[in-house]
This record gives sequence, structure tokens and C-alpha cells, in this order.
Amino acid sequence: MGTVVIKFGGSSLSTTDKIKNAARRIIAEKQSGKNVVVVVSAMGKTTDQLLTLAGEITDHPAKREMDMLLATGEQVSIALLTMALTEMGEQAVSLTGWQAGIITEKVHSNARIVDVKTDHLEEILNDGKIIVAAGFQGVTEDGEITTLGRGGSDTTAVALAAALKAERCSICTDVTGVFTSDPRYVPKARKLSAISYDEMLELANLGAGVLHPRAVEFAKNHSVPLEVRSSTVNEEGTVIEEEATMEKNLIVRGVAFEDDITRMTIFGLKSEITGLPSVFSTLAENQIDVDIIIQSQTDSQTNLSFSIKDKDRQEAIDVLERKKDAIGFDHIECETGLSKVSIVGSGMVSNPGVAAKMFEVLAENGIQSKMVSTSEIKVSVLVDSKQMKPAAQYLHDAFELGALEDTAAK
Amino acid sequence: MGTVVIKFGGSSLSTTDKIKNAARRIIAEKQSGKNVVVVVSAMGKTTDQLLTLAGEITDHPAKREMDMLLATGEQVSIALLTMALTEMGEQAVSLTGWQAGIITEKVHSNARIVDVKTDHLEEILNDGKIIVAAGFQGVTEDGEITTLGRGGSDTTAVALAAALKAERCSICTDVTGVFTSDPRYVPKARKLSAISYDEMLELANLGAGVLHPRAVEFAKNHSVPLEVRSSTVNEEGTVIEEEATMEKNLIVRGVAFEDDITRMTIFGLKSEITGLPSVFSTLAENQIDVDIIIQSQTDSQTNLSFSIKDKDRQEAIDVLERKKDAIGFDHIECETGLSKVSIVGSGMVSNPGVAAKMFEVLAENGIQSKMVSTSEIKVSVLVDSKQMKPAAQYLHDAFELGALEDTAAK
Repeated sequence: MGTVVIKFGGSSLSTTDKIKNAARRIIAEKQSGKNVVVVVSAMGKTTDQLLTLAGEITDHPAKREMDMLLATGEQVSIALLTMALTEMGEQAVSLTGWQAGIITEKVHSNARIVDVKTDHLEEILNDGKIIVAAGFQGVTEDGEITTLGRGGSDTTAVALAAALKAERCSICTDVTGVFTSDPRYVPKARKLSAISYDEMLELANLGAGVLHPRAVEFAKNHSVPLEVRSSTVNEEGTVIEEEATMEKNLIVRGVAFEDDITRMTIFGLKSEITGLPSVFSTLAENQIDVDIIIQSQTDSQTNLSFSIKDKDRQEAIDVLERKKDAIGFDHIECETGLSKVSIVGSGMVSNPGVAAKMFEVLAENGIQSKMVSTSEIKVSVLVDSKQMKPAAQYLHDAFELGALEDTAAK
Repeated sequence: MGTVVIKFGGSSLSTTDKIKNAARRIIAEKQSGKNVVVVVSAMGKTTDQLLTLAGEITDHPAKREMDMLLATGEQVSIALLTMALTEMGEQAVSLTGWQAGIITEKVHSNARIVDVKTDHLEEILNDGKIIVAAGFQGVTEDGEITTLGRGGSDTTAVALAAALKAERCSICTDVTGVFTSDPRYVPKARKLSAISYDEMLELANLGAGVLHPRAVEFAKNHSVPLEVRSSTVNEEGTVIEEEATMEKNLIVRGVAFEDDITRMTIFGLKSEITGLPSVFSTLAENQIDVDIIIQSQTDSQTNLSFSIKDKDRQEAIDVLERKKDAIGFDHIECETGLSKVSIVGSGMVSNPGVAAKMFEVLAENGIQSKMVSTSEIKVSVLVDSKQMKPAAQYLHDAFELGALEDTAAK
């Protein structure tokens, strides 16, 4: 009997009515003749409530205790969802992270899964019961409770699917699948029936927000077929799988965008050799993510530009200014209110004209690109935030993403 | 270095401010040079909130899932209290029931502790750290999460104290100790400095409500010195220990009472031999606790009276009527609105006049006793609820509980 893993996020479980809906969806899957493993996040606002309590006690909670606290969120969800399944006549068993054999490294708040012990899971599935496992959490070999950090529940689902050799891992969420762009901004955006891991990785990293890149990467490495689908609407979602299974590729598969970006420029860097590493290690030590980086040389000096999130701007300035002498630079300037617009598609790699066409489209429409970054399957540009939405629409039109039938994965 | 176990109940942890207060109390104990193990219940109303969620999903939750759900309550408490201790500069480690090595039998919702594995606990204490353990919960040898039922956190505290050979187990609660009677009803009630396990057992069973009888019994069996004290007021509590350590006993140590009691009488029981066991097994199967039992014989028939809680009355009638033919009886009558008033004291066993004096005092004051029950160290009577408070006061005065200095345990 084939096994499927189904993951429900917190917003799909925010009320007991939604939990009952999830239970119905799960039972339909079970009745189609599958072994079913469900992975859940904490209910709706639970995590926020727990964080508020911790915040009333300390500004610097020990990470171990934070994990202990937050792990209760999914434990509530698994118990309630299992009660709902039982109430509807199905046999189901809830399992915490440690009971589900999710072994992680000895790191709190952001642990990676190192092993999944499947004996107990297989026993329960062989008894014909549904497993409801807590996402986001695991246990070290020493018996310490850990959490997996951002995207943790998606990662748990993929890890269980890989360990149990599941035929599919379905991520049930607020949207019905992966779209060519965000339909709230680009009305012609269309749901894709299939997309490759790499394309999804770029889209996930670029703020599409449907699926955490970490989970996509895990799925790619273990060849777990992923599906993104709605937790409420019963329609086909988007399948994420190896390139090879798709007969034909669109050159550009989607347009992603992300708001609230700052471009920071450090002028007059004294030494390229020591200056660059010390800038980025300083930022990394302070958990400030840097995205696009550009280094430019004028006659007399080296300037360094990079993009960060608006929310990190002040801290970035503070930590760099504190190390000004050690790093060795003249001054810092910032431009805020920027957005990143990206085109993604694995067909790009063999089409060198794609980036050129992108710049052309933007230029024709009077949109200035402030920074550019490329990978084999995406091109990103920073633009003024006011131009984010029109830029996305022009690009969506120019690459004919809305017009085409989605035949790529047929 | 001596070890002490300190238990805080849910009402002592209902807000983050109260959690900080508990932390201060714990640190004072630690700084007096002790190894400290703290046992906590779920915060204030947490359990009720969880029960409400479960109730929205099903009227008959699986006990296993209920344990899974409720066990999150203490896990939140241990994390927050440990954060508070760390914030105040102490090294502390939170442990769930399974992490604390609390092994129970394979029963959900009402499991008994069968073992405490102390290796990990001793390691942490030897490192000079405070342990904050979740009360009320344990784990089976198979790794199933269980809860201990009523009085569970008190029992966890005593079990840890016994396993770690602690010099004391302090139960921190809403009151400052064990009183000769409930001060809300008997203004002259006085705090006892010491009381024996057996006396405390009778008082606990009789509704004094300070300490669960199960925990007292566990403490008695393992000779764990117990102390009941306030979680907020810093004053000596009441020590509960073996008789032998007390030089002198009051004949009567306290007056306890309990409201909302029904006397149920089954008339015309056909057969004493089969009727009695089937009545009480029927009630037991339906989790209806019976307290005082009186069997009376008239010329022609056997009648059976017993006391139960008012809340169980209708169910008791229903289940007995359903089995009327099997049990064999004529009809049932009930008298509701009764209360139980009891005098407790280990000196009683060698003073046969105590019961007589009790009846005398009640009679003199026009209080009719409707049922009587005695043990070696207590006498209980059922009276009309309106007379509960005066009865308690008359008895408290008659046995001079308020007048005497409490020299019993000096």
C-alpha cells in the first residue's frame, strides 16, 4: 500500500472547525487506499501567544527553553486533529517529534534533521492507523527537544516522506498551488500544474512564500515528489518534481517579487582583500541576510553595494559603524523603498536572450533597474517599490505567462 | 548537599508575574545551599482552555489524546519558569515528565508512577543546576505520554523527593499551611506547625483540599517529609511527618467539612449477599465515589444507605434503576443538601470518649446527625448543610483547637 504524507500549516488549523475540515480531507485520502501520515504546525496564533508569554519574562530566553515552550504548539494540534479523526471513525495516533523518531543535531531553535527512525511509524501504518505527527520539532540523541526553525513543518513532512519512501508529500496551504506570479498583484497569474525543484527553489527563495526553500531542497535531494495544494478547496495543486518528467519547459516559469528592500553602499573601502570579508562576516554575525552584492571600482576607491531587508537597515548601519576602523571605509549611504522583481525558469539557462529581454521590457516602460543578480535559472532586478507591481505585470505579459495553457508538465 | 523538592500549583503560576515570584522563592532556597528540584502544574486556566478546545471537537476524546493535549500545559510552565530563573542569573533546566524519568504504568488519564529514573536528574543537580520538572505527567516504558490524574503534580513532587532521597518536599500553595479547620468558616481556626501523615490523609480525604491524599499516601509509604506552605507569603508552613517525631498529640487535630452531599437509600434490597456487591460495583463502574455506607435491617427487608456527591446523584439513580432487576430492590430515595463534618486526630484511637463528646456537642446545639462513619483517627457525621458551619465551630470550640498553642510538634 502506498504511503502519502500530508502537511497542514497553522492557518489551516486555526480553529476547531478548520481542524475538522482537515480531518475530512485526511480521511478522503485514507479511503482512497493509502497509508496516511499527517504533519501539522501549531494552531494559528498559538506560537505568537507563547512568544508573548516568554517576552513578559525575558528579552533573552535560552534557546533550549524556547524550543521546550514552542514545541507545545504542535503537540496541541496533533492531539486535537487526532481526536477529530477518531470522532469521525478513523483510527489515528498522534506522535510528538521525539515519538515520531525525528532525530536532529544538537542545536536549539534551528536544528537540522539527521535521521528519522521509522520502526514505530511503520508499525502504526501496518496496523492501518493514520499517523498525526508534530512538525517543526525533533529530539537529539540525548533526549533534548529541539525545533527546526523557519520552514520546519514543511521540512518534517518532506523528511518523513523521504524516510517512509512515500509516493507523495502534499503541502496543504492557503493557496491552491504555485502560480506564475502573485495573483494579488498580477491578475493574469495562472496556477502551474508542475514545476521543477530548482525553479521552486528560486521562487521560494524569492518570496513566493508558498513553500520553504529548505523543504524544497530536502525534497530535491531525496527525490520526494512534492505537491502544493489548498487545504480547503478540493482541486489539483502544483506538483514539484524532477525536470526530466516534464516534456517541455517554458523559458520563464514565473515572476516573483519581494518588497521592503534597502540598497546599502559602503564608499571608500580601504582594502578589497580584508574589507569585503569583514563587512559580510560582521553582518552574518548579527543575523543580517545579504542578497545581491555588487562591487565597483572607480579610479581612486572601491565601493561595495548590497541589498538587505528594510527592517535590518538600522542594525546593519550600527554594527558596521562600530567596526568602521577595523573594516576601513569612508562612509555608508542607503537607498530604501526598493523591491526585487525576478523571473524564474529552468529554460533560461539555454536562452541567453532572456535577461536582455527582461531589461528591454523594463526600459521600454521607464522602469530603472538599480541592481541586478542572476543565476542559471533566474534574473532579479531591484526597482523602485512603486514600480514593483507594473514591472511584474509587464514581465508576466512579455513572457506570455498568462496567455499560454500550462502544458509544460503534461 | 541536601536536596529539596518544591512544588507550585497552577494558581501560583497563573501569570508571568506569579512565575517570577515563584522563581524568587526558588532562588532563595537554592542560595540556602540546597540542590533544588521544582515541580510545576499547568498555568492557571490552561487546562480548562485545552479542555474547551477538545470539547469543541468531540464529547468522547480518546484518553491517549487527552493526555497528549493536557501534557502541553505543564510543558509551557516549565519553559517559562526556567526562563525566569535564567533571567535572574540561576542555571536551570526544564524537563518534561519523560525527560525527568517519570515512568508510569500503561494507563491513560490516571496512571500511577512505577519508577523514577534518577541518573539524568542527578547529573543535572551535580552540575549545580536547578531542575524544573513537569508535574502530572509521565511516560510508559513504550514511550507513550501519560498523565497521573487528580493530585498528579503533588504526586510527581513526592515521587521525585522519594527517588532523590530529598530531605523535604515543599508543596507551595494558596494557603500558608494546614489549619485546624477552614478559616473562612471557622474564624478561630489556627495553622498547625505539624501533623502526621495519617491525620493529613484523613483531612485530605475529607475535603481540606490542601494536598491530594494520593500524594500524602505516597509520602507516608516512602517517609518523605512533606511541608505545606504559601507560594507568596514567606512564613513557616505545616510539616507532615511520622507520628514518632511529635512529642505530644492533640486528641483532635482538626475539623474538616465538605458540602454538596446526597444520602441515597435503596429500600427493599432482595438479597444482601448479591445485592450489596452489585450496587457498589455498578456505581464503581460508572466512576461514582461512595463515601459512608450504612446497611439496616428491619423485620421484613434490608435497606442500604450511602452518601455520594450531589453532582453524581442523577447518574447514580439512572445506572441503578437500569439494573434494578439484576440487583433486586424496591425503590430508591434521596436526601440532598447535606454536608459532612469530621473531627480528625491520631490521639483519638486511645480516647474512646471522643466520638461520644462529638455527638453530645452536636445534640446540645440541636444539630441532627444523619449518618456516621468512623476510622481510627476520625469521626464523620452528615448534617443538614445549613448546620455545617455552626457544627464545625461548635466542635472546633469544644475540642479547644483555637485556644491552644500549637505545641504538638515542638
